[in-house]
Amino acid sequence: MTNATMRAITKPSGQIGLVLKDAPVPQVGPADVRVRLLATSICGSDLHIYDNDPTFLGRIKDGNISGHELCGVIDAIGPLCARVKIGDVVALESHIICGVCWYCRNGKSHLCANTVTIGIDRDGGFTDYIVLPEDNAILKPDSISVEEAALLEPFGNALDTATCVDVVGKSVLVTGCGPQGVMAIAIAKAAGARRVIATEIHQRRREMAVAMMKLHTAAHRRDEDLVLDPRKPETEAVIREATDGLGVDVVLEMSGNPNAINTAFATLRSGGDYVALGLAGQNVSIDWTHHVVVRGITIHGIYGRHVYQTWDKARALLDSGAVTLAPLITHRFGLDEYEKAFQLLKAGEAEKVVLYPDKARS
Amino acid sequence: MTNATMRAITKPSGQIGLVLKDAPVPQVGPADVRVRLLATSICGSDLHIYDNDPTFLGRIKDGNISGHELCGVIDAIGPLCARVKIGDVVALESHIICGVCWYCRNGKSHLCANTVTIGIDRDGGFTDYIVLPEDNAILKPDSISVEEAALLEPFGNALDTATCVDVVGKSVLVTGCGPQGVMAIAIAKAAGARRVIATEIHQRRREMAVAMMKLHTAAHRRDEDLVLDPRKPETEAVIREATDGLGVDVVLEMSGNPNAINTAFATLRSGGDYVALGLAGQNVSIDWTHHVVVRGITIHGIYGRHVYQTWDKARALLDSGAVTLAPLITHRFGLDEYEKAFQLLKAGEAEKVVLYPDKARS
Amino acid sequence: MTNATMRAITKPSGQIGLVLKDAPVPQVGPADVRVRLLATSICGSDLHIYDNDPTFLGRIKDGNISGHELCGVIDAIGPLCARVKIGDVVALESHIICGVCWYCRNGKSHLCANTVTIGIDRDGGFTDYIVLPEDNAILKPDSISVEEAALLEPFGNALDTATCVDVVGKSVLVTGCGPQGVMAIAIAKAAGARRVIATEIHQRRREMAVAMMKLHTAAHRRDEDLVLDPRKPETEAVIREATDGLGVDVVLEMSGNPNAINTAFATLRSGGDYVALGLAGQNVSIDWTHHVVVRGITIHGIYGRHVYQTWDKARALLDSGAVTLAPLITHRFGLDEYEKAFQLLKAGEAEKVVLYPDKARS
Amino acid sequence: MTNATMRAITKPSGQIGLVLKDAPVPQVGPADVRVRLLATSICGSDLHIYDNDPTFLGRIKDGNISGHELCGVIDAIGPLCARVKIGDVVALESHIICGVCWYCRNGKSHLCANTVTIGIDRDGGFTDYIVLPEDNAILKPDSISVEEAALLEPFGNALDTATCVDVVGKSVLVTGCGPQGVMAIAIAKAAGARRVIATEIHQRRREMAVAMMKLHTAAHRRDEDLVLDPRKPETEAVIREATDGLGVDVVLEMSGNPNAINTAFATLRSGGDYVALGLAGQNVSIDWTHHVVVRGITIHGIYGRHVYQTWDKARALLDSGAVTLAPLITHRFGLDEYEKAFQLLKAGEAEKVVLYPDKARS
Repeated sequence: MTNATMRAITKPSGQIGLVLKDAPVPQVGPADVRVRLLATSICGSDLHIYDNDPTFLGRIKDGNISGHELCGVIDAIGPLCARVKIGDVVALESHIICGVCWYCRNGKSHLCANTVTIGIDRDGGFTDYIVLPEDNAILKPDSISVEEAALLEPFGNALDTATCVDVVGKSVLVTGCGPQGVMAIAIAKAAGARRVIATEIHQRRREMAVAMMKLHTAAHRRDEDLVLDPRKPETEAVIREATDGLGVDVVLEMSGNPNAINTAFATLRSGGDYVALGLAGQNVSIDWTHHVVVRGITIHGIYGRHVYQTWDKARALLDSGAVTLAPLITHRFGLDEYEKAFQLLKAGEAEKVVLYPDKARS
Repeated sequence: MTNATMRAITKPSGQIGLVLKDAPVPQVGPADVRVRLLATSICGSDLHIYDNDPTFLGRIKDGNISGHELCGVIDAIGPLCARVKIGDVVALESHIICGVCWYCRNGKSHLCANTVTIGIDRDGGFTDYIVLPEDNAILKPDSISVEEAALLEPFGNALDTATCVDVVGKSVLVTGCGPQGVMAIAIAKAAGARRVIATEIHQRRREMAVAMMKLHTAAHRRDEDLVLDPRKPETEAVIREATDGLGVDVVLEMSGNPNAINTAFATLRSGGDYVALGLAGQNVSIDWTHHVVVRGITIHGIYGRHVYQTWDKARALLDSGAVTLAPLITHRFGLDEYEKAFQLLKAGEAEKVVLYPDKARS
Repeated sequence: MTNATMRAITKPSGQIGLVLKDAPVPQVGPADVRVRLLATSICGSDLHIYDNDPTFLGRIKDGNISGHELCGVIDAIGPLCARVKIGDVVALESHIICGVCWYCRNGKSHLCANTVTIGIDRDGGFTDYIVLPEDNAILKPDSISVEEAALLEPFGNALDTATCVDVVGKSVLVTGCGPQGVMAIAIAKAAGARRVIATEIHQRRREMAVAMMKLHTAAHRRDEDLVLDPRKPETEAVIREATDGLGVDVVLEMSGNPNAINTAFATLRSGGDYVALGLAGQNVSIDWTHHVVVRGITIHGIYGRHVYQTWDKARALLDSGAVTLAPLITHRFGLDEYEKAFQLLKAGEAEKVVLYPDKARS
Repeated sequence: MTNATMRAITKPSGQIGLVLKDAPVPQVGPADVRVRLLATSICGSDLHIYDNDPTFLGRIKDGNISGHELCGVIDAIGPLCARVKIGDVVALESHIICGVCWYCRNGKSHLCANTVTIGIDRDGGFTDYIVLPEDNAILKPDSISVEEAALLEPFGNALDTATCVDVVGKSVLVTGCGPQGVMAIAIAKAAGARRVIATEIHQRRREMAVAMMKLHTAAHRRDEDLVLDPRKPETEAVIREATDGLGVDVVLEMSGNPNAINTAFATLRSGGDYVALGLAGQNVSIDWTHHVVVRGITIHGIYGRHVYQTWDKARALLDSGAVTLAPLITHRFGLDEYEKAFQLLKAGEAEKVVLYPDKARS
């Protein structure tokens, strides 16, 4: 069995940074599973928490364990568990839903009014063990590595974004090439987009976008993809020229940046679909009449992942090799080395960083 | 046959107002019809043109005939006409589409890149005769009066808005109770909405909204509809309370007013549909993150009417009596009396005003 | 508290008919509710069970309590219940789903691979008390009578059928005017159908269809509905003539009768929607090429109700009075009088019959 | 300019086979284009016409020119042509639509009530020149060969079938691996299907299916596709085992064979989509209750191609190289050698055969 205590990377109230300390190993309730963590990846929101971003300050109690992109092995289950068993390797849905609110009972549980998010509203997974409802444990196919399984959580967001509308034969603009942006690029390519055009201001991320585009292009395809620096004044003209002067069919807005939002509207053809995942830090000024109404645009806000159908689709894409996420993982550390990981990410020198509770990595 | 000249209400370049003068009766081309007008109604955009609104200034050539909500009888046809015949009474689609652009050949002809709008880009129908492509002539069922037929054009916009998403059993918020707003109310009721909540700052328009709600409510229904003055501070709370604290399922935004736009977002439940027809005069500041993205909202911009399927649906609703527009027509004048009509509308004392080219009204 | 025993109408193995006997009052498990029944209605499948229809023979164990259209008051709850409380009046979803199979975790729990149906696979509700998972208890709005609440279960099937596709402004054919057929008629009218055409061989049921059509038609509407005896040779011609020679836009097939199925295909216009709820007793011979493929038809098979979103829509329609089911209930009896009820139904002299466990009816 | 006469492969009334003879070069009407044919491919329906299949006997007038899968260069245009010009290389939509019927004016012109099909209802393209409405001329991208362009017509049918529903991450069963079946396989792979399972009784066609699967699979993908001989008794079990016991998510039925139709229903999971393109020679006996209704299946009949949006999608997929059709063309002949071509096809020894009016092939 497990030790009485475990290591945990926690958020100290009122201080910048995160603190590694000991915490009691949690015990399962009747419908819970306990997962011994094998790989956990760091999300952009973890950086925000590290830096005391006001968005999260009021929600996180002192000493809460961070981390919500997780993969591990089940080592204890409650008596009501019916679907999983001890020894199963699982990825973890980070949203705990209530099951009883109007949203949960109307097929919209991803919008549950009582969602509890691990790593924010309760203990997360930068630690050795986590306890969660059985429903949140998603079986990992053998073909997917434990570190790719940890990435399934953000991949689900990218997947709901990139498959929100049909992209077969279409031109797709992806604004922002952070981890979820490049995931969206890979998915759009796998889902039959004719061409993907991506915009990103950071050179390293543009290179990652190019690499992922090439990796997800079948041999006999013409290379019609573009990766652009949106600070160049010709950006909109280049996008328009690449799309017969009409503009793209679909926008996947992954950045939340007001400039990107407006470039996206300006280069989307009439009747097109605008899918919005990126969070803006403040209100955005939008040319409502000309960018939305008279051009007959449909805008789709995306939150979380569909619980749980997105997970099945995500596993199908990775299990079949239709999408591969391996290139996104640029660094790996032990759990104790988390400071190095956070500093690399804050310096913009890493894409996805995985923390391994065990030194021996899979 | 027709006289060599006809009366025409035209826009003089650089002057406020409209001028009645003589114009030559137009002749049909090979695929055209000529329509002797029986009833024409005045649109809000006609008021903007009257007042030299900068939106239209550059588009309208000196002496262009205004008016685009029209019903008349065909009195001449070109040799290629295959669907209509002389004597047919028709309503008129105001958008002339090219048929060859990407939009027209991809099922999106309402977004045709080369749309020519009558009354703005070429001669309209505040006159005795108009020539249009045969495609734009829509047969009027006998059960619909000629003045209701003139209203079919704006009704089509309201119809595309109110039936953009399924409303059966849902709570629907309509912001703005101008003519298209009350049309949308009537349609939403006829299409099975559980309750309609409308906001409008003008007392007279609120009364019209109430009247149309009652008229489109079957006898055994409970009265759950609300018409609110959005200037009252409790408006959002009242809407929320009327909808189990969740907010409405669907918004039909008909005003373009920034306050209305933001009230609409604030009272729309997560996962809801926001349908946008109202044109805003300037950019709108939107809480993109909290009002669109994390609440998983879908926004549908609506332009024009689907050419021509919306017309068939519109005729079905009016022909069957599922919707009636008669109460909206508050005033009727001869064509020569147009100044009185415009002054009434500018004073906010009329809803829809119909101009009759013939003195004897149907 | 409750007595140790209760009355129960049960299925004796190998015998025609049902038997009233004593049974122990069931006890709640941790996530269950116990409901004291107030009104239960008899379904066509209850008649099949009475008559030993081979479809059900193997599934029903000796002494199983029949009945699955139920309304009652909660009189006991298990410790894990979070949504309902003792004293709540509830309708009951008759399908108990597993929550863990692929269907349940992919938004298709109405197709759960492990569905247990009360009254067939386990004890139903022709009795004084029933125990069910809390999830299956649906709060009854005050505005709905207990006997209408009992009808919500079959109403949900009719609702999923009639709202499977948009019917606004459309011509809808309903084949079969049993209880679910007339429910579908009422819903189609409330949801904005232009006209409903119904076919039914039984005179009494045709009269009920006419009555429900009139009841769900607003005052100013033209009467375009039709109720036809499909045995008359002109039936198809009449339907076609009523629909401009094109045929109906939507079929709701509620009978399962092979003749009705083929009439429905023959009178559905190209590109139309065919919604199938009626169960056929044997294979059906279909002109696949001409009735399905080359005419671009979409066929929608409907099973059960969406768990649980259909219930919310059903309550909204009845609570608002958009639909009323009261005329369908033609007879009411005490629980002990069930034989009279079954004989009336078998004679075709009743529409819906409600059994009241308590003598005093609400 | 052109000669006064041209060669034409025509159908003699009442005789088996086709006859090559001289015919006058057709002249353009006001809205027509004349196309000098560069490549024409032979369809299965051409074989049926050759063999006097009763389906076509009554429709084809004596001496009608056969052939409807066509690519050529425009050599004359009528004065009303606005979109194409002399010298444009075009593929040709084979359905001439009326533009005025209910279907054409309701976004369903592929179901036009007055469709005229070239090669059947009027002269087709196994000849040197054909005249068609300008609307039917589809510009050929430079990247597509003239023989692939000839294949765009049947490719459009396969495309509407394979993209009728979203296939991203799904298991797709394709029944029948004739030319349109293997096209559907290629499209499903390009559109993100997790795995494609195909059934086909002919060994040569199974090999073609395997080749096309491999060609449309990116390098890093696992090989999960299957091609099965449906005569083997274990077929259904193999399909079920490959899909976690649930069955496939989507069926693309391309054969019209009653056995294939029933195998497809039997191996489709509940709630799945069944897309039907194959034409059955007679009525099909279907287990309506268990295969359609209680399993909540949706069936989509597919006819023709969407006019003209399918063509744009088709060009996008071929132009980008997302799909390649080159391997399907197994034989090429001059126009005069048509008998050889037909005999090869009738012997089952060719997949697609292209006739070149000019000896020198591109």
